[in-house]
Amino acid sequence: MPNHTITSVKGFRAAAMHCGIKTSGKPDLAMLVSDVPAAAAAVFTRNKVVGAPIIVGRRHIHPKNGGILRACITNSGCANVCTGQRGIDDALEMCGLTADALAKLTNQEIPINQVLPFSTGVIGHFLPMEKIRGGIPRIAANLSDSQQAGEAYANGILTTDLVTKTAHTTVTLNGAKITIAGNCKGSGMIAPNMATMLAYIATDAAISPKLLAKIVPQVADETFNCVSVDQHTSTSDTFVVMANGLANGWKRPIILGAAFKKFSDALLEVADSLAQQIAKDGEGATKLVTVCVTGGKSKADAKRAAEAIANSPLCKTAIHGGDPNWGRFVSAAGYSGAAMNPEKAICDINDIVVFKNGRPSGVDLAKVEKEMKTKHVRVTVDLGLSKTSGNSHRVYTCDLSREYIAINADYHT
Amino acid sequence: MPNHTITSVKGFRAAAMHCGIKTSGKPDLAMLVSDVPAAAAAVFTRNKVVGAPIIVGRRHIHPKNGGILRACITNSGCANVCTGQRGIDDALEMCGLTADALAKLTNQEIPINQVLPFSTGVIGHFLPMEKIRGGIPRIAANLSDSQQAGEAYANGILTTDLVTKTAHTTVTLNGAKITIAGNCKGSGMIAPNMATMLAYIATDAAISPKLLAKIVPQVADETFNCVSVDQHTSTSDTFVVMANGLANGWKRPIILGAAFKKFSDALLEVADSLAQQIAKDGEGATKLVTVCVTGGKSKADAKRAAEAIANSPLCKTAIHGGDPNWGRFVSAAGYSGAAMNPEKAICDINDIVVFKNGRPSGVDLAKVEKEMKTKHVRVTVDLGLSKTSGNSHRVYTCDLSREYIAINADYHT
Repeated sequence: MPNHTITSVKGFRAAAMHCGIKTSGKPDLAMLVSDVPAAAAAVFTRNKVVGAPIIVGRRHIHPKNGGILRACITNSGCANVCTGQRGIDDALEMCGLTADALAKLTNQEIPINQVLPFSTGVIGHFLPMEKIRGGIPRIAANLSDSQQAGEAYANGILTTDLVTKTAHTTVTLNGAKITIAGNCKGSGMIAPNMATMLAYIATDAAISPKLLAKIVPQVADETFNCVSVDQHTSTSDTFVVMANGLANGWKRPIILGAAFKKFSDALLEVADSLAQQIAKDGEGATKLVTVCVTGGKSKADAKRAAEAIANSPLCKTAIHGGDPNWGRFVSAAGYSGAAMNPEKAICDINDIVVFKNGRPSGVDLAKVEKEMKTKHVRVTVDLGLSKTSGNSHRVYTCDLSREYIAINADYHT
Repeated sequence: MPNHTITSVKGFRAAAMHCGIKTSGKPDLAMLVSDVPAAAAAVFTRNKVVGAPIIVGRRHIHPKNGGILRACITNSGCANVCTGQRGIDDALEMCGLTADALAKLTNQEIPINQVLPFSTGVIGHFLPMEKIRGGIPRIAANLSDSQQAGEAYANGILTTDLVTKTAHTTVTLNGAKITIAGNCKGSGMIAPNMATMLAYIATDAAISPKLLAKIVPQVADETFNCVSVDQHTSTSDTFVVMANGLANGWKRPIILGAAFKKFSDALLEVADSLAQQIAKDGEGATKLVTVCVTGGKSKADAKRAAEAIANSPLCKTAIHGGDPNWGRFVSAAGYSGAAMNPEKAICDINDIVVFKNGRPSGVDLAKVEKEMKTKHVRVTVDLGLSKTSGNSHRVYTCDLSREYIAINADYHT
């Protein structure tokens, strides 16, 4: 089986290169292009301080109606955040340069608002535009739908990530086999600056921008919005989905109904895989942690408790040390603000009940300790207030290690 | 000048000893006693999972009306949390044993509800009552108002704290010179368990329990509730104030008015000093950090932003590394949920403006870096939305170091 990449999707081409932003010589410019205008929808950071690419991106893709995209242009090594009007001008110029380069290649006119800009890296610095001006025509000339180009793209968007993050699925819809594939970067922060989560999913399904814009925020809520490495929401987070309708045998766009459900599930599957890969590659992480809270008085309460556990340095260090210190998990739920009945609450670690009926379960903790040494630790807390399955929430996170401190304290701006 | 301790307050005696709970041989039992019944008020943890001593303590001191106390009895090494009815019985027995021992010493009847119990340490274990039963009569026999006894008490309540924490002030009220002195422990977590913040303030002023109960939560809100080492609220946090009215020349209890204001300010001063000492002795801390947020749309928004900065591992590691990475502070305010005008926001570090008008101030960052190497780093963010001085909030915290990980990941339950 070949390794699937984002260029496994029919009609998508990619390229990556080093244009000179990063002093390390690593790739710092990446381009993703659809052969035809693609329906697109995106979710942007909720941070009130946002990078210039987010300001431009929100103009190009309407949050409710979606939009049309031909290309995503990404630079790493400089976030273009806190850069005022000049930053916005620079982000727009990145889009314009990309549109121009693609217009030359295709002999088609490409509107500037069909390009989405992404920047990730240090805050408070201006983009080195002379390097980007030189890079964009060159990277456009190297666009390819080869597996190699897809791999280069997955690598080109990275910053301090240790591994590339790719997910892929296929599904038969309306008689056509469609492909959904994506990449993301993040949860390794740019030394020594911001976390940035960037995710790109491409599909050759056909769907209207408006319907896509309905589903993408829901998918984000269930996947990327459930990831926390260090609870520090970046100024640049962006998740975009492009659907170009080029799958072989495709007849008509997806509309609401069974096909929509099937498509949504497939998109969720790809995004969920990418989200888990981000948590697993969190800075300094040695294991993936899934925190699940059930039995809340409400879904919101379950979310509060799950996030408190996932963000507690005490919980994360216990998991790092493989210490079956369940008191930390139960007490984190207790301080989260969620309603809780401690007498009916249950805590289990990798399916072993450690706390029940207001006191220790009496299980042999050596058994639990062994489970905590594995690469995937699952902590579940039931708040003891309902049996409604919807009153639950799941968060992906990772453990907290010395390496996290080293990455974020020792490097300097 | 002699070192002031809690026994500097007229009519208070203290003692501490090792009764056998801690395997290290360090003190694990401490008693504080007023010669006469003292007006008392207390603030307890907001965690929904609470230790047995909190359940008993809430019965002994009414949150709104306060109560009367003769003694505080504290053990360290075992938190008596998640221990069900047996835990409550044990906490009550600690009070009963203390009341009995004091009754023997003084030939007075001491009601059990005039004793407040405190436990700090590992969660999910029962108290070793045989050791406590042996210890309490012996510790009562050693009560003293000497400076040495006060120092022993300050030491006896500690767990992983590196230093004792004591504060003291005097103030003339209604013609009498009164003393306010206190101790606290906390922000070193019990290896490998809970943080617990315990604070005790004694005064020889006279005041009604109800009036004291009015002021103590306000003082807590301005001081202990502004401390965060790792945002993990313990199941055992308790702050108690005892006022026995034994100051020389005291004529009548404090009532609302000028004397009340003066007394409140003095109490605030002592509690503020203790709160800062907790942050400074946070696990693995190398410096005290004061985060101040001003210019919020509301006080609540300022609090949200200040807590987001104080709890962000990215901010705390930047401070640990002495990195003038102001983007982390600004972006933490941005994701806190507080309203913010990035174009009017200002960030300064130790009074040097680093961010203004939506972009870097242009200050020489080497100058800022030098400031960040000092032992007290002050980060201020103005949200740019008001000039009302009340729409601000201050949090005491510390940096995040490898030592924090070592303390909390490497030790085992």
